[in-house]
Amino acid sequence: MPHHPDRPIAVIAAEAPARTKPSNYPEPFASTMSGRVKRPLGDLFGLQSFGVNHVTLPAGAISALFHRHSVQDEWVTMLSGEITLVHDGGEAVLTAGMCAGFPKNGSAHQLVNRSQAEATYLEVGDRQAGDSVSYPRDDLVAMRAEGGWTFAHKDGTTYDQT
Amino acid sequence: MPHHPDRPIAVIAAEAPARTKPSNYPEPFASTMSGRVKRPLGDLFGLQSFGVNHVTLPAGAISALFHRHSVQDEWVTMLSGEITLVHDGGEAVLTAGMCAGFPKNGSAHQLVNRSQAEATYLEVGDRQAGDSVSYPRDDLVAMRAEGGWTFAHKDGTTYDQT
Repeated sequence: MPHHPDRPIAVIAAEAPARTKPSNYPEPFASTMSGRVKRPLGDLFGLQSFGVNHVTLPAGAISALFHRHSVQDEWVTMLSGEITLVHDGGEAVLTAGMCAGFPKNGSAHQLVNRSQAEATYLEVGDRQAGDSVSYPRDDLVAMRAEGGWTFAHKDGTTYDQT
Repeated sequence: MPHHPDRPIAVIAAEAPARTKPSNYPEPFASTMSGRVKRPLGDLFGLQSFGVNHVTLPAGAISALFHRHSVQDEWVTMLSGEITLVHDGGEAVLTAGMCAGFPKNGSAHQLVNRSQAEATYLEVGDRQAGDSVSYPRDDLVAMRAEGGWTFAHKDGTTYDQT
């Protein structure tokens, strides 16, 4: 069938439109994602089963809270700069051309830009139903729901979402 | 939980081990994939829901037969060199930093290296059950089966597999 008329054939990843909502986290966590820019690259083409983002982390920024998924597999590949991968067993420095994968129920993980320069990478994650996210270092749990993520404290009480 | 002891924390994508079987296609199609090198990058980390490969296409090589999936979403991003994306509506030249996505039941597609130099890219595809592949220009159909792919002529007769 012909190419979908409303979708691009190809795009320059670093120039794709940035996500308008900087973070899905409730406060006080959302503010800790300051500076992070995500450019969705799978949605642009109508992909449904996995998401791909081009992510820019300025110096000092972080990819996400330290977390692991119960269902989702994740994978990242570095495009530029230097980022520290924090995992359950320690840390590793990633530079352009390196990649890492995070299987469901594997090590918790987080990318931290401890360098003095901007870093960019691509992230891929599947969108299977029933996913949840645990945060070993924060009072937060997340569940994938119809249309997005819901967040709660570890005791089950909800965060005020605005 | 701790990092899986048999898996790497991170790897240099271009130096990951190449797939030992150059192509899953039956002949005479397998030989047309000559020169193509795929380095699995998701399996290394134990990812299951999608596959990621680093692909090297020397001058003159092709990514695959012109094809579309019924279930699988696919996405590619160029790392180096220049490749021609052939799709149902025409062609587009992809260079480093560009990406393209191929939703299930969308345009058929194929990457062709018409340049004089090697090109490299990353490809991502989900692994949902029930997938099949149609090849508008070749006498071939493929079905995802337990443990791999099965191939047949369009009239349903099988290829002799060795």
